[in-house]
This record gives sequence, structure tokens and C-alpha cells, in this order.
Amino acid sequence: MILRLTRRYRFAAAHRLHAAAFSQEANQQLYGKCNNPHGHGHDYVLEVSVAGPLDEATGRVANPAVLDRLVAQEVLACLDHRNLNAEVAEFSDAPPTTENLLRLIRQRLLARWPETLARTRLAGIRLYETRRNIFELAERS
Amino acid sequence: MILRLTRRYRFAAAHRLHAAAFSQEANQQLYGKCNNPHGHGHDYVLEVSVAGPLDEATGRVANPAVLDRLVAQEVLACLDHRNLNAEVAEFSDAPPTTENLLRLIRQRLLARWPETLARTRLAGIRLYETRRNIFELAERS
Amino acid sequence: MILRLTRRYRFAAAHRLHAAAFSQEANQQLYGKCNNPHGHGHDYVLEVSVAGPLDEATGRVANPAVLDRLVAQEVLACLDHRNLNAEVAEFSDAPPTTENLLRLIRQRLLARWPETLARTRLAGIRLYETRRNIFELAERS
Amino acid sequence: MILRLTRRYRFAAAHRLHAAAFSQEANQQLYGKCNNPHGHGHDYVLEVSVAGPLDEATGRVANPAVLDRLVAQEVLACLDHRNLNAEVAEFSDAPPTTENLLRLIRQRLLARWPETLARTRLAGIRLYETRRNIFELAERS
Amino acid sequence: MILRLTRRYRFAAAHRLHAAAFSQEANQQLYGKCNNPHGHGHDYVLEVSVAGPLDEATGRVANPAVLDRLVAQEVLACLDHRNLNAEVAEFSDAPPTTENLLRLIRQRLLARWPETLARTRLAGIRLYETRRNIFELAERS
Amino acid sequence: MILRLTRRYRFAAAHRLHAAAFSQEANQQLYGKCNNPHGHGHDYVLEVSVAGPLDEATGRVANPAVLDRLVAQEVLACLDHRNLNAEVAEFSDAPPTTENLLRLIRQRLLARWPETLARTRLAGIRLYETRRNIFELAERS
Repeated sequence: MILRLTRRYRFAAAHRLHAAAFSQEANQQLYGKCNNPHGHGHDYVLEVSVAGPLDEATGRVANPAVLDRLVAQEVLACLDHRNLNAEVAEFSDAPPTTENLLRLIRQRLLARWPETLARTRLAGIRLYETRRNIFELAERS
Repeated sequence: MILRLTRRYRFAAAHRLHAAAFSQEANQQLYGKCNNPHGHGHDYVLEVSVAGPLDEATGRVANPAVLDRLVAQEVLACLDHRNLNAEVAEFSDAPPTTENLLRLIRQRLLARWPETLARTRLAGIRLYETRRNIFELAERS
Repeated sequence: MILRLTRRYRFAAAHRLHAAAFSQEANQQLYGKCNNPHGHGHDYVLEVSVAGPLDEATGRVANPAVLDRLVAQEVLACLDHRNLNAEVAEFSDAPPTTENLLRLIRQRLLARWPETLARTRLAGIRLYETRRNIFELAERS
Repeated sequence: MILRLTRRYRFAAAHRLHAAAFSQEANQQLYGKCNNPHGHGHDYVLEVSVAGPLDEATGRVANPAVLDRLVAQEVLACLDHRNLNAEVAEFSDAPPTTENLLRLIRQRLLARWPETLARTRLAGIRLYETRRNIFELAERS
Repeated sequence: MILRLTRRYRFAAAHRLHAAAFSQEANQQLYGKCNNPHGHGHDYVLEVSVAGPLDEATGRVANPAVLDRLVAQEVLACLDHRNLNAEVAEFSDAPPTTENLLRLIRQRLLARWPETLARTRLAGIRLYETRRNIFELAERS
Repeated sequence: MILRLTRRYRFAAAHRLHAAAFSQEANQQLYGKCNNPHGHGHDYVLEVSVAGPLDEATGRVANPAVLDRLVAQEVLACLDHRNLNAEVAEFSDAPPTTENLLRLIRQRLLARWPETLARTRLAGIRLYETRRNIFELAERS
């Protein structure tokens, strides 16, 4: 019996969508008002899911405090109350779309996956840019 | 890496649940107060999900404006602020249950799936009749 | 010290906005798609507030079960899963706007205000037609 | 075409997390403030999903009233407004974590799965301990 | 121009409603399942509002960090993850209803209202026992 | 009988809190991470309330389409998907706190209050910077 635990986090950030590969006109058409050169911002909601077997002794699939610390250190510290274009190195040459944010978050979590979460695996990440614009990355099980 | 984008929409509609195959008594037992001959209504919440690879140039899995236009033209235009029994041809001989609505929405989206969404596929549809009555259709991946 | 208790209820109903005093063209302009002759529907959220002093013996301002019964009998029984135009007498010659619904709910509650709620007064009614269309009636204190 | 229906329920309960296998110090470290000997409580949100083919005659995948009755009798009756440690036999020797609650709910639903739901199978259970602490059990399809 | 700032907090607690002034039968009738001797629990949502003039230099009505600290020290520290009957002195002889909780919270906030909030006054407290059971205390302006 | 209509809107914006009157250290202490020189962002939720008598002919207190147009033109056009510090003149010498945003929104609405809303008055404005940081301005009645 594999159980899945999902924890929900929030961060606020500013960004501007602009792709270096395209002309100013193409960027404007592609991203609309999100291409505004002065930027705008969002309150992102992040859900991180881990999956694994039940530990009979503790009655838990994972220690949520460990997952919270991982997300705080590897993700929130570099994204919360930040300007994604100006302050996150990965976005110096890639547009800070929510899709690229998802990929970045996945890389950072996997790179530092702690021993204390070894019985579980990263099962999925969901990122709400707004309530009606939702992005997901499901890991293969 | 396959990403999934979900967009959320709303529509308000009236309906009455009644199946031609059954007697009036059976309909009353089957659908309860939803069988009221004068009808009643709901604010439906619709989530449409598409899945596909990341486009490195744009940093996106799909252009949300294209999906919004498809849903507006093929789904919302015929369902929002409508009486489903009286105004939607598919429900002239099938009860306008949320399950049948899901099937109708899927058919309409696939029938006009645009070239500009060709890199993605319809991955799933979720329809909230109310906050506690939720229906889903998952496409095979 | 006056305390205020608010209880939240839901009902689903169909309606059509149409005012007898105006031409068809004026109705269309006034109510837009809500004037669709076949009707549409909503899931209304109703909040009823009562105010009064604390009863030291029970630690309560009112018995919520009594308020729930009043609202169920006087309001939900005649509005839930109904067609407001066809089934509610007050709307035979007045458009079933949310404002008129509010007035109707207030009249019905006050007409049967029970002895067991005598220590409290009706303090306000709030009606959400949708999440972004909210109507309130505040009683004078 | 397999459809999935999800119904949402709520229950309020008190619990204390404590595992007999560990020392008091280890319990305190493991569960933090949830180990408070006097207990605390939550408003749990439970989502039960069933999956099956569409019944063309009724336009439904399952009769929601049957599922509601099953959940009320087998789950809510023994959990709602209860102290999980003191009143639920399964937790006399296992900590009442949300993971163990999930397993208990699954066992109780499957043990009494009614003939009238025979065309569908239990597809998943999701339990929100709080809005940001979510547990899921997905059945193999 | 008087502005109002509201901050939202959460706490989880167990309680049992029982009034010493009444017989066991009367308690059962008065509080229903909330009278269960083993207790049950809730996730309370607390909103604290302060009102005052705009400080032109800071562009603020109050420093939210100061209010957060006051609420954390005077309210959350004694209520979060607690059993209200067993661990809060005020409820040794008064039932821990949400009304009595509101009064307790008001007393504790006013008793330690800090100099750094002197330009504002406590304007109101709202406490959600559940999403549909809401209690408010408005201060006279 | 005075009724109150509230409409809800959303806008996304970037901002940085910094007050010219204070040193860099004082700004850092005053606004914390909101003082980050690169800025960050939010999805604001705006509620605008109008109050007035019921118009018996239309069954309405106000035409919501007129209010929506006013808010779109006077508020959303200059705030949505903007950098408040760089693009809104009022914030060239005042920090773009939510309190100052409230005042700005009130001024802009009152300056262009249309004849078609003459039977109602602006009754209040509420602005959610986040779900737990809420600001209100109540007009005198």
C-alpha cells in the first residue's frame, strides 16, 4: 500500500515573461500583458507530493517537518519575495514561466533529497500561478 | 519531461434530471429533488487539462490563450447561462447529468482541437457540479 | 457585550431575469444573458446573522439548531432545487433578482421568528449569487 | 470510457499522536505539538472517489445517495465528533495519524461495498488533515 | 480617513461542550454530539481587526509584525494544539463555546495591547469554528 | 431598506515597499523582505461595495455592468499586470502599501462616479493583499 503525502506552500514573486529568441513584437503577441517590461507579480501556491509505504512504527509515510525544511531551504529561500528575472540565475536566459519554475523546483528538490526521506520518492509537483492557471509535473511511478 | 497545464472556467446553467426510459416514480426515486419538473440550476466549475513537452523557446507547454478560445467557443458559448434540457440538442433524449456533460465537452473539444495545440493532447476534464460533487474523465496517456 | 453568530447555507435554483415593466429589448439590455427566456441557474450561498448578549449559563448567543430549523423551513424548503420564476409566488410579478430574494428571505424569517430566538435579533443577511456577486441587507442596530 | 465521481465529506475529531514503540522523548521529537497528552483536534475533509463506465439509461456512473449512505454508516458514524484515541478501537495500539485513518477508512468501505455500487470500484481516497496537509491512497486501476 | 487591517490566523484545538449548570440530559439536548464526553476538535480560523488613521510616513495603519507577535504570544500559545477543557483555566468552570473563546481572546489582547499599536484600536474579532459557524465581536467605534 | 452590492475583482502587480523618509536600515526593519530592492508581487483581490435603495422596476440596487466598467477603466487598467513603483504616478513618492492602494482606488472611483450609479453611493472597499492580510475602508453612512 503506497500512500501519498502532499504539503502546500506559498510564495510571492515578481516576474516578466520575455523570450530572448523572439522579437519585441513576437514577445508582445506571445505573452500579452505578462510581457510588460516593468514586470508584475503573483502569489504562487506550491504543492509538493511524496509517495511511499507506511512506516508501521510511526504511522507515517514521511516526516512532514523534514519535507518542509527541504522546501524552505531549496525553494522558498530563493523564490519568495524575489524578482525572478533579476534574482534567480536560471532565468537570466530563460523566461520565468511557471513551467520553467516547475522544472527548477524539481531539480533543486532532487539535488538535495535527504537521507531522512529515503523511504519515499518525489511523486509530483503542482504550481498554481493563479487559481485558474495550474501546472503539474508527475513523476513516473 | 511531460508537463500538464490546467485552466479553470465557470458557467451557470439550469437543468432537470429526467430519464425517458423510466416511469415518473422511478425518476423521482432515482434523481430525488433534481427531478423537479420546473428545473433548478448550478454554477459549474470546469477544469480542462492538456499535457505535452516543454517548448524551450517559449518556456511553455501550450499557449493558454488558444485553449481559452477553444473552450469559450466550443463549450461556454453553448452551456453558459443556458437551460441544458431546452437549449442543448444532445440533451433532447439524454438526461443532462454531469457525466453526460463531461462526455459532451470532451467530444466538442476533440472535434475542433486546433493546429496550434498540436504539440499537446487533451489530458483530462474535471467538472464540479457543486463543491462536493465532482466528476472526472482521464484520457489514456 | 453583543455577539454575532452567522450560519452559512446553500441552495441551488434556476431563474430568469425579466421585468414586466420593460420591452423585450430593454430587458435584454438590462439583464444581458440573464434574460435568456429558457433560464439558467446558480448555487446560492446564504449567510444569516443574529446578534444578542451572551447567555452565561450555556455560553452561547443562540441555539444554532433553532436557527437552522427556521432557515430550513422558511427559506430552503421553498427555494432549494426550485425554479424561482415558476415556483415562488412572489416572483410571479417581480424579477427574481438576488436583491428581491434577499427581501423575500428577510420577510419569511421575521414572520416566523421563534420564541426560542427571542433573546437575539436578525442582524443581517448576505447572499452570494456567485463568488463575485454578493448582496447584503444590514438591520439597524 | 471510465468516469470518476468524487464526493466530499467533513468530520471533526480530537486526537493525540503517540506511538507506543518509542520513548516519551522520541514521541515529542517525532510528533512535536501533536504529541500534547491532552490532545487537540481537526476538521477533516474526506474525498471518496469511485470509477466505472457510464450507465446510459441513467446518465450516471453511480448513485451518489448510495455512496453517501455507505460513507455515513461506515466512516462518519464512527469518526465524526469523536476522540480517535479513546473511541476508535483500531487506535488503541496504533497512533491515529492521517495515514492510519486513510487505511481504516479504506478497510471499512471495502468491507461493506454494496451490491448497488457493483458496477464501480473504489478508485481513491483523499483526506485533508488541514488545507496544507493532504493524504491520498490511489487504488490500482 | 480610518483604515482597518485584518490579519488571519489558525489554531487546532480539542474541546467538549458541557455546562455545569445543567443535568446530563439537558447538556445532551443543548449541545448534541458536541457533548460527547471524550471530546472532539476543530481547526479554528481567527481574524483580528485593528482600525486607525494612515501613518503618512510608512503608508501603513499598523505594523503587522507587531500584531502577529501579540496574537502569537497571548492567543495562539495558549490555544493551538491544546485541549480547551483540560488546559485553559478559563474553561474549568465555563463551557468552551466559540462565544466564550471570543471573549477570552478579546480580554487577552486588550490586557497586553502594546505601545507600538497605540495609534490603532482593536476593531473586531471574528472566529470561524467551521466554515459555516462564524462568531463575531465588534467593538464600538 | 438599503441594500449593499459587492463585486469582486482581481489584479496582479509587482511592488517594493520603501519609504523615502527613512534610512535603508530603517526601511529594512520596517518592511522586512517586502523591502527587497528588486521587488516581488501579489495577486490582489478587490471588493467594491455600493449601497442604495431597491429600484422596484428592475429589482436591482445598481447595474453591475456599470460598476464593472468603472472599476475596469479607473482601477484595473492602471494596476493590473503593472509594477506599482515604476508605473503608477502616485507611488513615485509614497510607498505602494495596500493602505495607499486603497486610498488611490477610492479617489479614482469617486472622481469618475457615473450618473448611472447616482442612486447609490460607494459604501466600502476591501483589498486582500493575500488571504491573510486584508485592508478595508468603510465610508460613513
